[in-house]
Amino acid sequence: MNGAEMLLRTAAEAGVGICFANAGTTELPIVIALDSIPEIKAVLGLFEGVCTGAADGYGRMTGRPAMVLLHLGPGFANGIANLHNAKRAGTPLLNVIGEHATWHRAADPPLAMDIEALTGAVSGWQRTNASAGEISIDTADAVAAALAGRISSLIVPHDHQLSECAKAAIVKTRFSFAPVDSREVERAEQVLRSGKKTALMLGKRALRKNGLLAAARIKAATGCDLFAETFPGYVERGAGLPRVARLPYFPEEAIAMLSGYEAVVIAGAHDPVTFFGYEGVDSFIISLEQTKIQVGMGGQDIIDVLEYLAGPSGASGERLAGDDTSAPLKHPGIPAGGLTAEKISLVVAALQPEGAIIVDEGITSSFSYYDLSASAAPHTLLTITGGSIGYGMPCAIGAALACPDRPVINIQADGSALYTVQSLWTQAREGLNVKTLICSNRSYRILEMELARAGITSPGPNIRSLVGLDGPAIDWVKLAAGFGVPGASVRTAEDLARVLGRTLAEPGPFLIEMIL
Amino acid sequence: MNGAEMLLRTAAEAGVGICFANAGTTELPIVIALDSIPEIKAVLGLFEGVCTGAADGYGRMTGRPAMVLLHLGPGFANGIANLHNAKRAGTPLLNVIGEHATWHRAADPPLAMDIEALTGAVSGWQRTNASAGEISIDTADAVAAALAGRISSLIVPHDHQLSECAKAAIVKTRFSFAPVDSREVERAEQVLRSGKKTALMLGKRALRKNGLLAAARIKAATGCDLFAETFPGYVERGAGLPRVARLPYFPEEAIAMLSGYEAVVIAGAHDPVTFFGYEGVDSFIISLEQTKIQVGMGGQDIIDVLEYLAGPSGASGERLAGDDTSAPLKHPGIPAGGLTAEKISLVVAALQPEGAIIVDEGITSSFSYYDLSASAAPHTLLTITGGSIGYGMPCAIGAALACPDRPVINIQADGSALYTVQSLWTQAREGLNVKTLICSNRSYRILEMELARAGITSPGPNIRSLVGLDGPAIDWVKLAAGFGVPGASVRTAEDLARVLGRTLAEPGPFLIEMIL
Repeated sequence: MNGAEMLLRTAAEAGVGICFANAGTTELPIVIALDSIPEIKAVLGLFEGVCTGAADGYGRMTGRPAMVLLHLGPGFANGIANLHNAKRAGTPLLNVIGEHATWHRAADPPLAMDIEALTGAVSGWQRTNASAGEISIDTADAVAAALAGRISSLIVPHDHQLSECAKAAIVKTRFSFAPVDSREVERAEQVLRSGKKTALMLGKRALRKNGLLAAARIKAATGCDLFAETFPGYVERGAGLPRVARLPYFPEEAIAMLSGYEAVVIAGAHDPVTFFGYEGVDSFIISLEQTKIQVGMGGQDIIDVLEYLAGPSGASGERLAGDDTSAPLKHPGIPAGGLTAEKISLVVAALQPEGAIIVDEGITSSFSYYDLSASAAPHTLLTITGGSIGYGMPCAIGAALACPDRPVINIQADGSALYTVQSLWTQAREGLNVKTLICSNRSYRILEMELARAGITSPGPNIRSLVGLDGPAIDWVKLAAGFGVPGASVRTAEDLARVLGRTLAEPGPFLIEMIL
Repeated sequence: MNGAEMLLRTAAEAGVGICFANAGTTELPIVIALDSIPEIKAVLGLFEGVCTGAADGYGRMTGRPAMVLLHLGPGFANGIANLHNAKRAGTPLLNVIGEHATWHRAADPPLAMDIEALTGAVSGWQRTNASAGEISIDTADAVAAALAGRISSLIVPHDHQLSECAKAAIVKTRFSFAPVDSREVERAEQVLRSGKKTALMLGKRALRKNGLLAAARIKAATGCDLFAETFPGYVERGAGLPRVARLPYFPEEAIAMLSGYEAVVIAGAHDPVTFFGYEGVDSFIISLEQTKIQVGMGGQDIIDVLEYLAGPSGASGERLAGDDTSAPLKHPGIPAGGLTAEKISLVVAALQPEGAIIVDEGITSSFSYYDLSASAAPHTLLTITGGSIGYGMPCAIGAALACPDRPVINIQADGSALYTVQSLWTQAREGLNVKTLICSNRSYRILEMELARAGITSPGPNIRSLVGLDGPAIDWVKLAAGFGVPGASVRTAEDLARVLGRTLAEPGPFLIEMIL
């Protein structure tokens, strides 16, 4: 068995079942070894940002790392933007990067680069393999680090992949979360029971069903209110699930939402801050006058922490359905007339099937979706955690491969979609049940909003050329057809409802261009 | 005047006339300032790899840096792969990266990243601006570093862009190459005149017309043979220009080509090495038995060095045309029948107009073009210097904007094209005279060749899924239409000649899908 096979067998035994790849010569031994390890399915992306984004989607849905096989420094660099989103989401993810043979490095061949400098910018764990005999332990360490919700990056020189290592054994991957820090939990409980008006801010795994149910019990026992960070990586919601308010994007609205609380307990979320720095606005949404406490740091599972916190509070989880903690089922009616951002949200909320996975990268066009879908059929919502655009289409690939029985609806801004538009081809190749809804407003609308905030109301030609996506307008139906995905174009809410309803009844990918 | 305006005015006065951008909120002051500085044309790319690749093409053609305006770490990361190619080409290039406001960094907002780690991986010069008052000197330093053939990366915090700096003066950019090292040149002359069979290996600026003419004089005087590195960034060639052999891609052929020489003088080129490390093959093409000497290092202009070297050798440049140093004009005939890689090369060589800029990213489909076009109409050839795929379409944008009076022909492999396919939109938006010839073989053919070298002749499903681009086949004409570029599909050499001839007679972009 050579190093490449050792790597893949170690990963497969640790439960890695998929490998998104765009490989080159330096990863060829791993590509070849994949043929002898059918437990790992190889999926081709036409660009590395597709591969890393797909691994993010897969990891968010399963809680287990997908492997991404990347070609040297440039291949890894192409994947960084979506790895950044995965990092901010706390997604378990395993990068394997092929490197030149150790003896070839000194020649500084054309593709040579400082790969470790690049992996360092987004990885929670990284290592360059030092010998074929250590490939299995390195892989096991990498997977274990990933399981804690981190980006692992293992760099493997070509000669080590090729080397025979008959004597080395497959190392078993061992991982467990750290035990709950009871003193930390007791401090949080003091705050929650202090009588102060308290917000419980949830992020990462706290927004999975068990975390939410524990949070709802805490709410029932203490009277706190539940919030999610502005861009949650994964949240289960809709009818029957605990209602959680989401922090708005613009700072004034976010500050207004939290300003009424005397205390904030942060569970798995980032300390809420403004997305950008705005002159005259504090970076931190929570003021110095508010009590702020974080729980679940340092390798603990935030779900354990919430359950521990919910336990002694004595509330029962039985009576959640129907009380005001959980959302009732309420389908919005289908709106009529020319499409607007709100009408898109209403149509999706009305038609999304139970169990749908909503991949939201609608940016300005889907700001309204979260509130309008609060009582929709139960669903999982994924959002753009790191703000690095081009995450939606690849993430939909990973989510669909992770959960082949659940439909994926990708609400997708046009400007962002164009970053990783090659994703459509993988959706076609794998026959994925992904419905892509392109919000075609033919501009970087968020920039127009920021320009307005900066007082620019009549931009000149240089500004217009950097903000507008018209001239020429993208023909999304042709673009999708070019990649092998069928599509249709709609301009009214009724047409969107008709086309979306019809395509949701069929398997396979479909793209709807929604002209705004 | 604020920091953003200072930056742009300094760049404009240093001769920067174009800015490729995909900007965000952290670069908004620069976007706004662009409107008051019409000397700099703003060009939108739908993805940062398009912007950096376009700047590479522009810099290669003009010898002057284009500016690329990039959004934080993720935006820069998306541009790294093509910056790597630009670095290996020795292209002058100026990156300006917006960073969060200095006072906002501590909040670790969603898009925060270690930008300096990323810029360090590809930049020859980099700095994070420390105050608005220093923006002009930083910009002047950055442009000067770029003019030496380096990637300059200037990171500018948002608050510094906004700050008023009324008292600061615009700093003038000063740059000159280092003087020729006469002792180094004399050593090279000793080798050239030693009577040993000598190869003169040319790279970077040595392949510009003045460098080539000097090299031809050296050849006439000393009897050396002229070679170009495997992937030259820029070479002027064709009828009337000195003939230069190109080092082949695969090591066996490259070693065979150079093995007959007792000495090699390397002028501006990288020491020739194999592209990848192949077990049993030395990394270095030039053996230890061969004399090897490099000239023109340390900031010298290799053209000065060659002219200095040509000077004392006493040969006159007058009698070059017609002698065997220069290529005669000889149009190949148009071949017939189903397309092959060789027939594509022949058709292009036959029809390319005088002054055409050939952007070659045909990979396996254009291996034959270099030799088959040796006697074509005089043209400039650009190739994939760093091996980072997805360079061709963006590079064609930059070349077309740099030289609006010259047609650009982009011979483009399909797998590589899909990396930065969004480039087609910028070609349409700017009405660029770029003819894209897609070599549609529906596979990563280079990987198939490498698999064959590794002894894999009947790959299983996982290998096939990572190497094949069929299932579904990309419909290139639809894809181009989606981005606003007209196109046609051809299967025979006659059809290619007919369609290419017709489209070369008209301005504007066009895509030809060549089914192989």
